[in-house]
Amino acid sequence: MMKVPFFSKFQISKFKDWVFQLASFKFWLRPFAGARQKILKLPSPARGKNAECSKQNQNHDCPNYTDLKMIFRDIGRMNAIIEALGRDFLTAMPDGAYKSRLGQMAFLSRRRHEDLADQKVADKIEQAKTHQKKCPDQWDEWDKANLFEMESMYRHHCRVSSELMEKRARLSYEGRRRHREVLKNNDWQAAQGFLQEMIDLQREVAESKCLLDNQHDNEAPYQALMREYIPGARISEIDGLFTRLDSKIKALLPEVMERQSKQEEPVPLSGPFPSKLQLSLNKTLLGLIGFDFNRGGLYETGHNPVEGGTPDDTRLVIKTSDTHNFLDSMKSALHEGGHGIYIQGLPRTQWRYQPVGQDLGAAVHESQALMIEMILGRKLEFFEYLSPRVEGLFQKFGEPAMQPDNLYRLKTWVKATPDRKTADEVTYFSHIYMRMQLERDLISGKLKVRDLPDAWNAKMKEELGVEPQSHAEGCLQDVHWFVGKFGYFPSYTLGHMMAAQFHESMKRDIQNIPDLLREGNFAPVCAWLGTKIHAFGRLYRSDELVEKVTGNPLNINALTQHFENRYVAAAA
Amino acid sequence: MMKVPFFSKFQISKFKDWVFQLASFKFWLRPFAGARQKILKLPSPARGKNAECSKQNQNHDCPNYTDLKMIFRDIGRMNAIIEALGRDFLTAMPDGAYKSRLGQMAFLSRRRHEDLADQKVADKIEQAKTHQKKCPDQWDEWDKANLFEMESMYRHHCRVSSELMEKRARLSYEGRRRHREVLKNNDWQAAQGFLQEMIDLQREVAESKCLLDNQHDNEAPYQALMREYIPGARISEIDGLFTRLDSKIKALLPEVMERQSKQEEPVPLSGPFPSKLQLSLNKTLLGLIGFDFNRGGLYETGHNPVEGGTPDDTRLVIKTSDTHNFLDSMKSALHEGGHGIYIQGLPRTQWRYQPVGQDLGAAVHESQALMIEMILGRKLEFFEYLSPRVEGLFQKFGEPAMQPDNLYRLKTWVKATPDRKTADEVTYFSHIYMRMQLERDLISGKLKVRDLPDAWNAKMKEELGVEPQSHAEGCLQDVHWFVGKFGYFPSYTLGHMMAAQFHESMKRDIQNIPDLLREGNFAPVCAWLGTKIHAFGRLYRSDELVEKVTGNPLNINALTQHFENRYVAAAA
Repeated sequence: MMKVPFFSKFQISKFKDWVFQLASFKFWLRPFAGARQKILKLPSPARGKNAECSKQNQNHDCPNYTDLKMIFRDIGRMNAIIEALGRDFLTAMPDGAYKSRLGQMAFLSRRRHEDLADQKVADKIEQAKTHQKKCPDQWDEWDKANLFEMESMYRHHCRVSSELMEKRARLSYEGRRRHREVLKNNDWQAAQGFLQEMIDLQREVAESKCLLDNQHDNEAPYQALMREYIPGARISEIDGLFTRLDSKIKALLPEVMERQSKQEEPVPLSGPFPSKLQLSLNKTLLGLIGFDFNRGGLYETGHNPVEGGTPDDTRLVIKTSDTHNFLDSMKSALHEGGHGIYIQGLPRTQWRYQPVGQDLGAAVHESQALMIEMILGRKLEFFEYLSPRVEGLFQKFGEPAMQPDNLYRLKTWVKATPDRKTADEVTYFSHIYMRMQLERDLISGKLKVRDLPDAWNAKMKEELGVEPQSHAEGCLQDVHWFVGKFGYFPSYTLGHMMAAQFHESMKRDIQNIPDLLREGNFAPVCAWLGTKIHAFGRLYRSDELVEKVTGNPLNINALTQHFENRYVAAAA
Repeated sequence: MMKVPFFSKFQISKFKDWVFQLASFKFWLRPFAGARQKILKLPSPARGKNAECSKQNQNHDCPNYTDLKMIFRDIGRMNAIIEALGRDFLTAMPDGAYKSRLGQMAFLSRRRHEDLADQKVADKIEQAKTHQKKCPDQWDEWDKANLFEMESMYRHHCRVSSELMEKRARLSYEGRRRHREVLKNNDWQAAQGFLQEMIDLQREVAESKCLLDNQHDNEAPYQALMREYIPGARISEIDGLFTRLDSKIKALLPEVMERQSKQEEPVPLSGPFPSKLQLSLNKTLLGLIGFDFNRGGLYETGHNPVEGGTPDDTRLVIKTSDTHNFLDSMKSALHEGGHGIYIQGLPRTQWRYQPVGQDLGAAVHESQALMIEMILGRKLEFFEYLSPRVEGLFQKFGEPAMQPDNLYRLKTWVKATPDRKTADEVTYFSHIYMRMQLERDLISGKLKVRDLPDAWNAKMKEELGVEPQSHAEGCLQDVHWFVGKFGYFPSYTLGHMMAAQFHESMKRDIQNIPDLLREGNFAPVCAWLGTKIHAFGRLYRSDELVEKVTGNPLNINALTQHFENRYVAAAA
């Protein structure tokens, strides 16, 4: 097995000898006080005529594994219910239901946690692993991966108390509204108190998780949090990748700016672009990338976009469109659409609620979103397709701003800005890198919450050479920390790197991508993503998948090559 | 205590000696195989600063009762989640999520049932009852009623297996779509198979419940089902009331028709009445009756209206409006609005999820809906308020059909029709009565499903003198049986009787109701309903409430007097 860049030893051992794990199993199964007192009543197994003929519901030769599939089916149902409640929360629920709904979602999160962090689950996993050793022929690669993921999920939850999980869920849902308020009012004081509470809570969760791995260094809690989004992530590996990428980008930037200085500045868009027409455009584009509206939809919210959903119910939520700029809502729709087709392409008929039927975490998820939004959705040929149609849609016939090369330049113009969401593709990494450094220090305690605005502004100046004009433009701009997502930011860059690597393979398999995009034909590239990535669920670990699809471990070369191609080499 | 008309001995014993029940407690606590193997992990009790200062979350002198409150809080949360999923299911969910959502709702229904039908719950109820006997001073009337309702809920569930409950939930949600299909296609064949499955399942549930009461007569299963909607209902009492009401209405009808024959037939409405304007009108009317849009809303569906919701989230769903007749959607909005203000008026701040904080079942619920829709919403004075406004809204200035007396006659014109939903107030009872007789026979097995269409048409002819022209106009018209609501129909008439009785008391307290309605001022009457009925939750049983509010047990006099006043005595 090749060296993998940022995955834990635990994951690497997957296909190695299971003996070591069995030997150490007893140790990490020592119950965390309070989390194990419940004895689950097993869900009813697949029965007679009503049973779907799927791998999820099939009886396995190992009855303990069949039981586990039923337990995880119900855990998956709870996930799906929480997702649905969340969509409703953001899009349709009356305001007065806010507080009680928070309680309901937190309650169900606790229940889900209790079902998962149950001694019975651990026992059954152990039994199933014994069965797998004794009768390896009875276990196909999907079942093996499924059991492995069950164990991994169990390990992630078993040390954390259900009270903590309930509190965390409540605070996370609450955070979305808190963020909206502090952002609107540029209110650092209110933000500080909430962030302090959130960080303390996240650290407590992280430290519970670290007990498991017997890790006590200062960075271990941050790594534990990061692994919720990037399974098996190792902070040292990510540091290595990011340091190299940082130097490379810093070296490239003068060349980029040099070339850009010889180009005309893009003509800004002049609206209005009515919201309804933008929504219609965005739905049409989602259709082009193969998003199935029978199993999903596109909705708007006054606040941040929301990722997530299930293969049966993928309701994308983007921010209400800005009538001055249709490219922003389009960017958001393409990004969420990339997430959406990944979710919809998961192996739902066979493995609907099973761990192996789920996505590979935030890094791979972002790779799919950025593939559509940035890699493909910013190609000149796509704007050649788009231009005449948006001229017509918005009745801007012949306007210079709407010409293909102008739209292309608008979306590829490199200019440092304090705002991550409107940042260009090249300087985007600096936004991620500085956030990662800050959140590490917040979790380790090296950075006090009260010092965040100064630290933010200093980093921003140092990395991007710009200064935010307000807290809202500075350290309050992102929703992530308010909803408890510490350790998520690196996913964007890891995903960007993966997307660039996948794109290189895709170009080898599909030679006429530019011609296809010029006709608005996303079908071949999306089918490629579907069969190479989406359909596998978690059959392979993400490092394995990257190697399988691209022939190489994850690295920075494809992304830097992409930057060179798009921002240095090409004529405008 | 006065004789109450239709409540079980079990309920009457509430304030009598508890010894009998304690003696028999052991008997009915014998576990039903399969329903009790789970040992609940207790939900975390109210803690520190986050605890709402409500009776629900307060620690009680009896720790077992505090535990029970936490268990029932979580059961209530599951109810609320199922309600929210159901709203989403009908109004926003993408079609492709249909099957998986059915599974999720059925799963959660099973979980709720398991939490409730748990031996631990029975034990704690027994302990709490002992505490109540020993320390009666520690128990105020709300806590006593709450414990009583806990026991009642437990009794309703403890004998039914969780598999059966899951299957029933799934079939019920599925039934709504099945009904839409068979109705559209007038497809009795498809309906028959589904109804057979539903009836077999309902009978199985009912028979499980009867084991508890050691009742083996043929009507017991139907009565057990009816009690899900009308707690403590006794079929013999209802028979007595309905027989008397039937004779009375049959005696009145010739007088009604005699008087009506001297009147001009109402001028039919001539549309179009744009749907958007109807929705706006209906929302305005809901505002007038005090419906709180901060905790609810009004939505449309292609199918039947949906009752239900929670005090925090009361989203009413009515059928998409008919552009030829704004009175139909208005009727539906007023009816659902009556349900809605009842739900919103429940004692949520103190008792949000507790049994004592819930409504008193379908009969009282319908009384509130029919009070708004039929008793108040068909008064001439209300149409005097409405007429000039709908003239304006729909731009029908001066049209004869839109005049107050014409609108009044349209809504009070007595004419037998095969359709329950558009039936007039007087012949409405016959629709209920025939359905009750048919569903009793379906559950007891006396009537075979295959013979339902003939039996339906014969009853219709016998009771109303009309014949449906199709299955869709006949035995397929109602959604109730398709969603498993056997035993619900009597609630409409019991509710109508209650509404008429409440109205008499209301008139004693508020002497100028007609004047108020002429000004569109529903505030005083709705405040009266709120303080006399809604705010009590289940503090009193419904028979007690009727007596408290009206001074009499439930009887047919007020309703028949209402018919005489409106349909015989008054000049047009």
